[in-house]
Amino acid sequence: MILPEPTLRRLPWYLAYVEILRARGESHVSSTRIARALNVDASQIAKDLSFLNLRGKTRIGYEVPVLADALTDLLGFHKSHKAYVVGVGSLGGALLRDNGLSNYGLQTVAGFDINPDVVGSSEMPVPVYLLDDIEEVMGREPADICILTVPAEAAQEAADAAIAAGVKAIWNFTPYRVKVAEGVVMANTSIYAHLAIIYNRLQNP
Amino acid sequence: MILPEPTLRRLPWYLAYVEILRARGESHVSSTRIARALNVDASQIAKDLSFLNLRGKTRIGYEVPVLADALTDLLGFHKSHKAYVVGVGSLGGALLRDNGLSNYGLQTVAGFDINPDVVGSSEMPVPVYLLDDIEEVMGREPADICILTVPAEAAQEAADAAIAAGVKAIWNFTPYRVKVAEGVVMANTSIYAHLAIIYNRLQNP
Repeated sequence: MILPEPTLRRLPWYLAYVEILRARGESHVSSTRIARALNVDASQIAKDLSFLNLRGKTRIGYEVPVLADALTDLLGFHKSHKAYVVGVGSLGGALLRDNGLSNYGLQTVAGFDINPDVVGSSEMPVPVYLLDDIEEVMGREPADICILTVPAEAAQEAADAAIAAGVKAIWNFTPYRVKVAEGVVMANTSIYAHLAIIYNRLQNP
Repeated sequence: MILPEPTLRRLPWYLAYVEILRARGESHVSSTRIARALNVDASQIAKDLSFLNLRGKTRIGYEVPVLADALTDLLGFHKSHKAYVVGVGSLGGALLRDNGLSNYGLQTVAGFDINPDVVGSSEMPVPVYLLDDIEEVMGREPADICILTVPAEAAQEAADAAIAAGVKAIWNFTPYRVKVAEGVVMANTSIYAHLAIIYNRLQNP
């Protein structure tokens, strides 16, 4: 089911909150209570949760474990999605070593770089290959997602290479605005934009 | 100068592109050319760049090094902004070890955790303290920004402790929607939401 992007942005908040309630052993939660906890409009929450096809009981609300599992399922966090990390510098290496995202269904199966010194590095939990070999690696260890962590000047070319090899989604952590053909999924995590926003607001309190 | 958030989101794209031109030794760039390269409306770019108070020459455009420096300056990337990393787990530890953000003016000066095993860890390039000691550390090694990388269930409490100690901005990497008092700067980098968007779009091509 295709979900609207604003809904996909809010659902992980509800899941995080409901998982906290589950850990506390609470049995039920209403959209009103989620609304109060997260500062989101209750009718908005009810609308977002309607995608789940769950039925909440009047006043009592949803069963906490059922709601948590349904959200995890709807968000795709229960399945394993294979990904390459392209650009094994400081951020890329950190993402390869960070196993936290595996709790959210992301499995990094290989890294790629143009620096031969990084290739075959034993410090990484998965193999690191030359970017030139991405097509060959795709043949035996395929992945749908390319996590792009190269320097800005290499971003477009590296994304093009990954797409040519067969990845279907680019998760762009570079400050460069990468262009992709229609049909390729594109998500930008703009950490530099967030820094710029924080600095600007701090300077103008 | 207070800049609108959409402008702050776009300016780093322009900077990344102009830095590439600078590295190539190009002398001038017009907003039309930036527009074509980045797929952004040219009049939007002209409007965004008007915050710089630079004058571009008709047809030739802006001098590349002047534009790059002015953008870096306006975005605050040339100054050093001190930050704590609160939650030295996989992502927090990765951010502490990643020195890439220092090119964007972010200087992580200390880490905090509730796990005594992590405190004093020699694997980190900066000292890691108990979260309980954050007020005391603020006295001798102050920071304005709290990078929040604790588990979701600890997010609100950890943010509250950092704000009580004196940080003025929370950069939230947790999936929890943290609430802060008015006047505290809040930025959410929703990596879980981006994963959810990628998974959903991949499933519904």
